[in-house]
Amino acid sequence: MKWYLVASLLTILTSSQGILTTLSQTNGKYKYDYATIPFLAEVFKLIVSSVFLWRERKKSPPPKMTTDWKSVRLFPIPSVIYLIHNNVQFATLMYVDTSTYQIMGNLKIVTTGILFRLFLKKKLSNLQWMAIVLLAVGTTTSQVKGCGEASCDSLFSAPIQGYMLGILSACLSALAGVYTEFLMKKNNDSLYWQNIQLYTFGSIFNMARLVVDDFRGGFEKGPWWQRLFNGYSITTWLVVLNLGSTGLLVSWLMKYADNIVKVYSTSMAMLLTMVLSVFLFSFKPTLQLFLGIIVCMMSLHMYFAPPHMLVDIPPAIKSDPESLVNVPVDRKTDS
Amino acid sequence: MKWYLVASLLTILTSSQGILTTLSQTNGKYKYDYATIPFLAEVFKLIVSSVFLWRERKKSPPPKMTTDWKSVRLFPIPSVIYLIHNNVQFATLMYVDTSTYQIMGNLKIVTTGILFRLFLKKKLSNLQWMAIVLLAVGTTTSQVKGCGEASCDSLFSAPIQGYMLGILSACLSALAGVYTEFLMKKNNDSLYWQNIQLYTFGSIFNMARLVVDDFRGGFEKGPWWQRLFNGYSITTWLVVLNLGSTGLLVSWLMKYADNIVKVYSTSMAMLLTMVLSVFLFSFKPTLQLFLGIIVCMMSLHMYFAPPHMLVDIPPAIKSDPESLVNVPVDRKTDS
Repeated sequence: MKWYLVASLLTILTSSQGILTTLSQTNGKYKYDYATIPFLAEVFKLIVSSVFLWRERKKSPPPKMTTDWKSVRLFPIPSVIYLIHNNVQFATLMYVDTSTYQIMGNLKIVTTGILFRLFLKKKLSNLQWMAIVLLAVGTTTSQVKGCGEASCDSLFSAPIQGYMLGILSACLSALAGVYTEFLMKKNNDSLYWQNIQLYTFGSIFNMARLVVDDFRGGFEKGPWWQRLFNGYSITTWLVVLNLGSTGLLVSWLMKYADNIVKVYSTSMAMLLTMVLSVFLFSFKPTLQLFLGIIVCMMSLHMYFAPPHMLVDIPPAIKSDPESLVNVPVDRKTDS
Repeated sequence: MKWYLVASLLTILTSSQGILTTLSQTNGKYKYDYATIPFLAEVFKLIVSSVFLWRERKKSPPPKMTTDWKSVRLFPIPSVIYLIHNNVQFATLMYVDTSTYQIMGNLKIVTTGILFRLFLKKKLSNLQWMAIVLLAVGTTTSQVKGCGEASCDSLFSAPIQGYMLGILSACLSALAGVYTEFLMKKNNDSLYWQNIQLYTFGSIFNMARLVVDDFRGGFEKGPWWQRLFNGYSITTWLVVLNLGSTGLLVSWLMKYADNIVKVYSTSMAMLLTMVLSVFLFSFKPTLQLFLGIIVCMMSLHMYFAPPHMLVDIPPAIKSDPESLVNVPVDRKTDS
């Protein structure tokens, strides 16, 4: 399967996620416990991966599966990083408003590039670095509040702790991604076996969260397993299936493509969601959304296009000798 | 002289132009007739070029000067284009508000690229085209109205004629630039001789404008030569000298560099003016100004950096396959 098809599918599903989540609300509120969604999505991914592994084991040669503890013990680490990340996010939101929080979220594009370079030792050209910065700038541009929008005075007026936590959050998010890529690529184990290890720990950590929520809430609404499907509608199930599917696609990309592909995929999804919201939820399109989309498209092309396609100057076309100036332009390298 | 030094000087002087013009106002109004400024600037440029030509003629070999009518008759054309352009600008402002007008002004970056390609037959790489689009997007981003700013409802709500005139205006502006470049490069005449022809017609056209203004105003304030220096202060003279100097630098760039260099120069000047205004006139800096500056800087680098510096991937460094982080970060020689 081509990586760009998987990446495009991830863009579409990630974009649907925001829209489905909005549609799953009743009068702007969730009738179900939102914390149950990621737990069920982990279980869904675990089931799907198990089925695929079972099918793979019937074929020959059998899939490669490393089962010693030295390898397995590495798989709960992404869950641990996400757990810390969630708590940092929560702390960040105590200092900054949601607009600033959203804007700062784009930092993770740049931190992913940096950690990708440092930990996975991938080399990028200057143009690719510029493309990554432009992607972050483009997504940020699209989110700039237009005139007349409320609650914009508070933008970037938070205490310094808020920004430090925002940067920490961007680093943790990047670390989780880069670590997962390292995990998926460190040997040629079956993708499904690696998934099963990831999602088993993912399910346990998400279940633990539901239990902790129960204790925090003093079991007022009963234990989590009794209210697991309370208030679920068809749309809620679609949210679960969709979240699970995006997770499986991300896993695939981590093994067969890389973090940068994933970052482009989800950034494009963010823009697609904003464009779709214009039609679905009658959001007013802004000039900055349009400008942000152009910047991100240029960035995409800069990062992925073959270098010769970018820098080659088209050969001089045979032209009428009468014409004014017929000199192919010299690139100004100096003087 | 290196073209980038001239371009940098042009950026600084163009940026000063806006600031000096603001400083030359008294209580937000001009005490002098603003239409006299471009006329005097043309005369200043004419005098400076004459002095330089006179000095050049004392040397050997003497400067090349084509004086036959077939050549000279081409030199009033830029003035004619600017005259049409001024009237189109005036008409545009009857349909669109000043914010929309300012935003549409960035279109001339793209039209200059297109006419540069079509009329001067200069070839650009895909990356250079992308850089030109990004420059236009970057300058536009920096001008997006922030929240809380007044008069933004009217943005892009003008009748279609307004946009057509805006596009026409961008084309005329580009045409004037591209035509001037053709004029300066069509033979190896002395730059000063070419300037004298340009500025003689420039002075005549500007004088004609003052006369027309007098007739329109019914000579209420007397003929233009009687009130030429009325209300002039030191700052007003600086505005004249500054405008004249930028004109001379543009002429130089048209002969020894090209229109794209000029477009970068003046776009950077626009951003520099906005940054200086934050300090000088306590403008509130916006997130979009910051984002726009990053996009323009990336664009500058994409257009002018040598291709190999952009697309080469740093060579893999021999490293211990066991260790995760054992590679010295390669130095980024640029940016």
